Amino acid sequence: MNDIKQKAANLINQVKESVPLVHHITNYITANDCANITLAIGGSPVMADAPEEAADITGISSSLVINIGSLNERTISSMMVAGKTANQAGIPVVFDPVGVGASQLRNESSSQIVDGIKIDVLRGNVSEIRYLSGKKSQTKGVDASEHDMLSSAESVTIAKLLAAQLECVVAITGAVDIISDGERTVCIENGNAMLSNITGTGCMCSSLIGAFCGAAPEKPLDATIAALLTMGIAGEIASSRTQKLGNGSFRTMLHDAVSLMDTDTLIRRAKLYEA
Amino acid sequence: MNDIKQKAANLINQVKESVPLVHHITNYITANDCANITLAIGGSPVMADAPEEAADITGISSSLVINIGSLNERTISSMMVAGKTANQAGIPVVFDPVGVGASQLRNESSSQIVDGIKIDVLRGNVSEIRYLSGKKSQTKGVDASEHDMLSSAESVTIAKLLAAQLECVVAITGAVDIISDGERTVCIENGNAMLSNITGTGCMCSSLIGAFCGAAPEKPLDATIAALLTMGIAGEIASSRTQKLGNGSFRTMLHDAVSLMDTDTLIRRAKLYEA
Amino acid sequence: MNDIKQKAANLINQVKESVPLVHHITNYITANDCANITLAIGGSPVMADAPEEAADITGISSSLVINIGSLNERTISSMMVAGKTANQAGIPVVFDPVGVGASQLRNESSSQIVDGIKIDVLRGNVSEIRYLSGKKSQTKGVDASEHDMLSSAESVTIAKLLAAQLECVVAITGAVDIISDGERTVCIENGNAMLSNITGTGCMCSSLIGAFCGAAPEKPLDATIAALLTMGIAGEIASSRTQKLGNGSFRTMLHDAVSLMDTDTLIRRAKLYEA
Repeated sequence: MNDIKQKAANLINQVKESVPLVHHITNYITANDCANITLAIGGSPVMADAPEEAADITGISSSLVINIGSLNERTISSMMVAGKTANQAGIPVVFDPVGVGASQLRNESSSQIVDGIKIDVLRGNVSEIRYLSGKKSQTKGVDASEHDMLSSAESVTIAKLLAAQLECVVAITGAVDIISDGERTVCIENGNAMLSNITGTGCMCSSLIGAFCGAAPEKPLDATIAALLTMGIAGEIASSRTQKLGNGSFRTMLHDAVSLMDTDTLIRRAKLYEA
Repeated sequence: MNDIKQKAANLINQVKESVPLVHHITNYITANDCANITLAIGGSPVMADAPEEAADITGISSSLVINIGSLNERTISSMMVAGKTANQAGIPVVFDPVGVGASQLRNESSSQIVDGIKIDVLRGNVSEIRYLSGKKSQTKGVDASEHDMLSSAESVTIAKLLAAQLECVVAITGAVDIISDGERTVCIENGNAMLSNITGTGCMCSSLIGAFCGAAPEKPLDATIAALLTMGIAGEIASSRTQKLGNGSFRTMLHDAVSLMDTDTLIRRAKLYEA
Repeated sequence: MNDIKQKAANLINQVKESVPLVHHITNYITANDCANITLAIGGSPVMADAPEEAADITGISSSLVINIGSLNERTISSMMVAGKTANQAGIPVVFDPVGVGASQLRNESSSQIVDGIKIDVLRGNVSEIRYLSGKKSQTKGVDASEHDMLSSAESVTIAKLLAAQLECVVAITGAVDIISDGERTVCIENGNAMLSNITGTGCMCSSLIGAFCGAAPEKPLDATIAALLTMGIAGEIASSRTQKLGNGSFRTMLHDAVSLMDTDTLIRRAKLYEA
């Protein structure tokens, strides 16, 4: 696993050197957090969701993050245009199917995206990924449902199968993060329960994946591992710094910790194993 | 009043145990704050404002918060669909008429909402509630206008009458919060002037009311009192912790204080009286 | 320069006394930051972007800030309506052409705005202002492109010419801020590199300009200088307070520092010279 850690850690410097422009078509709830976390890791965020400019903006970007957290007719059009532009130009696409399973609009839009766009990395919570894998899920809004909790072994199976089916990297984030490209599967045990007490940590994971993929488009598995290690370790650092200060301080210090993340910290604190 | 305090305080645990899903159709300016405050008190937020999914999302939620802070044609449709869905399913509806009085669009939309949807709790500042009660008001954007300031006695009268007329709980928040269901009226003297120095504290009050109503749909008066005590006391704690640090720190510590609020703190610090 | 400093500093008290209502038609990514910074300096923010209410809201406002950070068909209509209303009523208009040069939509919308609305203050980064001045620029999303970096002398020339051409104040913000009304040109050397590590500092500059212009509509040059001194000095204070804490703490303390800015601090720390 030292090899995987080292490769993920190296990508941190690669992001800082290349400053990838990450085009987000995302929700208005966590857009500010996503922009700030992209800057914190060393990328440059751009959020532009008018269909008229989706192709132009994706065209100058290093990666595209599609997040359906507050989708509507207009932004769905933009997602499709941007996704196809990215595919044509060989720009990596990250898909975050926020709340899929909770409404027909999200279900249909997710199908449209997965069917019409070649996704490089799909990241969601267990309810969302379960739903997309065709299993019954009981999505409760945008948070993972307790009814959907799986054993690690089950999650590994779902991630592997879905990754193979969609020919992309699939990441299920939660207490343990599972990342698979269908052949290799890695589990990350970093993180902290506080990460689910503030909004947007899932969305921010997807933004980080976007930044890392923008810096290393040919290595979506390493990029995803690097992103989720970054968020998990930053969560641990923020939690230990905030102690019992509360959610607001935790959020501030999470951004602090991502902005200070470096190769050494990542290698030293990474807890991962191959499944 | 000890009875009221105890009932309100008990609801804190009820929120944390039931983790109510609070559907917000709200503005993009404070949506992040509203999501975070809902999580801080123990609820689960979902912001979804496409008309195509409004019914689906409200249908799986424990309460609905309608906030017209940045309304537009699309979101007004969603508010109506969601509101009617909530009414049919017996899901409590909180209405925050942000800036009503400041534009014809807000005036007409508020009428449409109040006429077409059974509201459980209406919360606004004195300018907004004055306007809805049919009195002349001089709304200045989204903040209460000084011209509209009333004596507590006048506010109590307006709250009572409007509550009786709309058959709902009416809350006027400000230096003193007035809460009435038309029969009982309670005044809360907790809070701090700093609360009006940051954006979104009104919106966050409505989100907290949504969370408490989601946990106790049959007790809108207690839920509203619990929510406004929480915000007022959190404002006091944040203000005393930040001292002269400034607005950014106050905001962070306000979120901290809501996330740490417990039954004891609420009972010990609550300053309320029946009017 | 002491005269300029003193005039700028005096405006701080003028903002706090007049509490200007600043109508923003802006992006959803930084809207919360813009609202909070407007409150921090002593103004009152209102963000309303439905075309149906644009005229009503501008009509009761002290200034209008048009920011195309996440423009779309609906908000462009609103910008035009609000801008024309402001012009008719003599309300100052600040224009922030976020990302112009990065998409045809932004280019065309910016032309439409500049051609159809009398702008009082135009603020952008060097890529954006270069583009609007008719020079080739290589806008990289919403951040200034390194390729577009100019010597101070070149920036001064562009600002002066564009200010004369548009008959408005032009501000190019960056490591050195250049502000010109075509006749007088002032350079500000306050600020800190951390300001480009968080999202929205450009947008917040425009909001501050809106607040100062709202308090002193007849003095757009002084208002712009006051706003950019405020942000630059606040950046220095926040940076020295945060030391190596990271981006989240810097952001919090930037809001702190703006909320605590006063006449003395501004005069004492202002570093400016006439070009």
